[in-house]
Amino acid sequence: MNEDRYERGWRTLAQLDAVGGQRVVDRLNAVAPDLARYTVEFAFGDVVSRPGLELKSREIATVAALTALGNAPAQLKFHMAAALNVGCSRVELVEIIIQMAVYAGFPAALNAAYLAQELFAEQDAVAE
Amino acid sequence: MNEDRYERGWRTLAQLDAVGGQRVVDRLNAVAPDLARYTVEFAFGDVVSRPGLELKSREIATVAALTALGNAPAQLKFHMAAALNVGCSRVELVEIIIQMAVYAGFPAALNAAYLAQELFAEQDAVAE
Amino acid sequence: MNEDRYERGWRTLAQLDAVGGQRVVDRLNAVAPDLARYTVEFAFGDVVSRPGLELKSREIATVAALTALGNAPAQLKFHMAAALNVGCSRVELVEIIIQMAVYAGFPAALNAAYLAQELFAEQDAVAE
Amino acid sequence: MNEDRYERGWRTLAQLDAVGGQRVVDRLNAVAPDLARYTVEFAFGDVVSRPGLELKSREIATVAALTALGNAPAQLKFHMAAALNVGCSRVELVEIIIQMAVYAGFPAALNAAYLAQELFAEQDAVAE
Amino acid sequence: MNEDRYERGWRTLAQLDAVGGQRVVDRLNAVAPDLARYTVEFAFGDVVSRPGLELKSREIATVAALTALGNAPAQLKFHMAAALNVGCSRVELVEIIIQMAVYAGFPAALNAAYLAQELFAEQDAVAE
Amino acid sequence: MNEDRYERGWRTLAQLDAVGGQRVVDRLNAVAPDLARYTVEFAFGDVVSRPGLELKSREIATVAALTALGNAPAQLKFHMAAALNVGCSRVELVEIIIQMAVYAGFPAALNAAYLAQELFAEQDAVAE
Repeated sequence: MNEDRYERGWRTLAQLDAVGGQRVVDRLNAVAPDLARYTVEFAFGDVVSRPGLELKSREIATVAALTALGNAPAQLKFHMAAALNVGCSRVELVEIIIQMAVYAGFPAALNAAYLAQELFAEQDAVAE
Repeated sequence: MNEDRYERGWRTLAQLDAVGGQRVVDRLNAVAPDLARYTVEFAFGDVVSRPGLELKSREIATVAALTALGNAPAQLKFHMAAALNVGCSRVELVEIIIQMAVYAGFPAALNAAYLAQELFAEQDAVAE
Repeated sequence: MNEDRYERGWRTLAQLDAVGGQRVVDRLNAVAPDLARYTVEFAFGDVVSRPGLELKSREIATVAALTALGNAPAQLKFHMAAALNVGCSRVELVEIIIQMAVYAGFPAALNAAYLAQELFAEQDAVAE
Repeated sequence: MNEDRYERGWRTLAQLDAVGGQRVVDRLNAVAPDLARYTVEFAFGDVVSRPGLELKSREIATVAALTALGNAPAQLKFHMAAALNVGCSRVELVEIIIQMAVYAGFPAALNAAYLAQELFAEQDAVAE
Repeated sequence: MNEDRYERGWRTLAQLDAVGGQRVVDRLNAVAPDLARYTVEFAFGDVVSRPGLELKSREIATVAALTALGNAPAQLKFHMAAALNVGCSRVELVEIIIQMAVYAGFPAALNAAYLAQELFAEQDAVAE
Repeated sequence: MNEDRYERGWRTLAQLDAVGGQRVVDRLNAVAPDLARYTVEFAFGDVVSRPGLELKSREIATVAALTALGNAPAQLKFHMAAALNVGCSRVELVEIIIQMAVYAGFPAALNAAYLAQELFAEQDAVAE
């Protein structure tokens, strides 16, 4: 394991969503620990930690891409929460989703909107 | 035709890329003029013109989504140019593309990188 | 809100499935009311209401597309019910699904067939 | 080779586009003759030849699906021509494409519209 | 029904997963019996039974493709079990999944890993 | 740059197709050198170099996935050549492609077959 890359990746992942990130790592460790490690080392340590684009813009890009692809709802919800944690407002999140109706069609946008609604409701329930 | 929506859409489209936008409208007018109109009225007039998310962030979202989907190179190139026109740097554009290797795989990212290279070379040739 | 477009859209949506359509609008209103509005105004008011292709053929096209894309089961089930409401028979619906095995592969067709089975069973339970 | 299935498939393929169909078979024969045979026997002989949905509706479904998937332009153009050959009008074809903007996004619809424009221009050039 | 093709298909399907295969056939028979028949006759009888590529390699190809497409989890889980039944080890299965992170992105790989974990846990529970 | 990961990646890439691999690296270096580096370090160094699945099986998986996704023809052709270089026969390659007709539809398989035909013809021309 490359400590630097892993540590940098974990630090970025923790900024996005430490609890959710730990859950992903634990779940992957049970079946494919190297995939857990690559997720931290490569995805978050090499790529998402890069300078050159601020973290909020990176999450905008990821939420847009996963909304458009439409086949990874768990990851999309994770990144919606992450986007909120690094400076996106709910309004901005909803705007990204609405815009995807143009680029990937209404069904993709509707399903992302339902996920956002679920996330907001869960966060509001915790907040109360 | 709803003048307000169309005008607002055209104004936004012209901010992104007036020449490229006109080319799209002309090309669509030859076969499906109402699709040209909806592109301006709905896609750019209703959606992309919305407040709540700045234009640069909207283009980050669109470039990310089209890179991930990987099946609309002409539109991706248009939106790469548009992103540059509304405040993205080339570095930021390349960062979005690299990040898509994580979320949509290396082939999707590589093909978007080749398109970016083409666009940058065309712009540099014009600039000289 | 553009009353004409919205009204026309709602009228078409109600022809397809008034109860299901209202449910979609309500669900979207809780998180992205403008997306609810665009669904009615643009998707159903501007596009699906157009002359030039009869409503039954439009639903055949939509069921085929959503079966092939395979990532929007809720919307696919909605449009299967809608197709039945505007003149498709169950046999025709099953034929569209089988044909998608050719164009999008057996897994896409199988998953659509399971959804159709669910829908038919629900409708038969109500009918009894 | 199952003569009945192959003959039935070829008869249906010839109704759709005999010249284009022969070109596909020839091209496949050079590399994967059994794939050519399955295309005729299974795709056109077993599936597209089925009663229960008229050929025009089958082509509406196929054009919609391939427009939405967006990654098979040669096959989409073939089926646009085929749709015209079995009773679709150009207007109907354009309507299917416009509708796909709703279900698969504007880029998918735009690229299909460009293909339709190409096809119509080729047919008009031959007609003159 | 073509007895030879059906029998050959069923024999291959039974090698992959007789119980799971019967469940698919039964479920399809309730809504689209001809799709059940084509699944056995064409998918398993014509294609998967072909010489020229060993069954284990065929299942590697299928698990890779369904992991990458990401929109058919039930079929992916079926083919993971089938791959194990025709000579893939769990390690090999996990390797295919990890490799798909490169070609289709991390979300696709993560979701396949979760499915593999589910499958392994179910098999271990039965084994105990 | 991590020398070990890069060197291991390059060694694996060179086994697959040294000339084609160098071309990809050169092309990416002109626009996104870090993406070139990650391709070698992560994709080929971390993942494709892993023990646990032989290289031939890895290429079977990749050819299957890229055939099914259908939106990365350059990468698919690269991996078809690579598969041949690490022990796949042409017959096996064609079998993978035919099988994808079942899992991703005939258009995806046909387009991969055309690419294979192109590759075989280029190789035969060089061989003469």
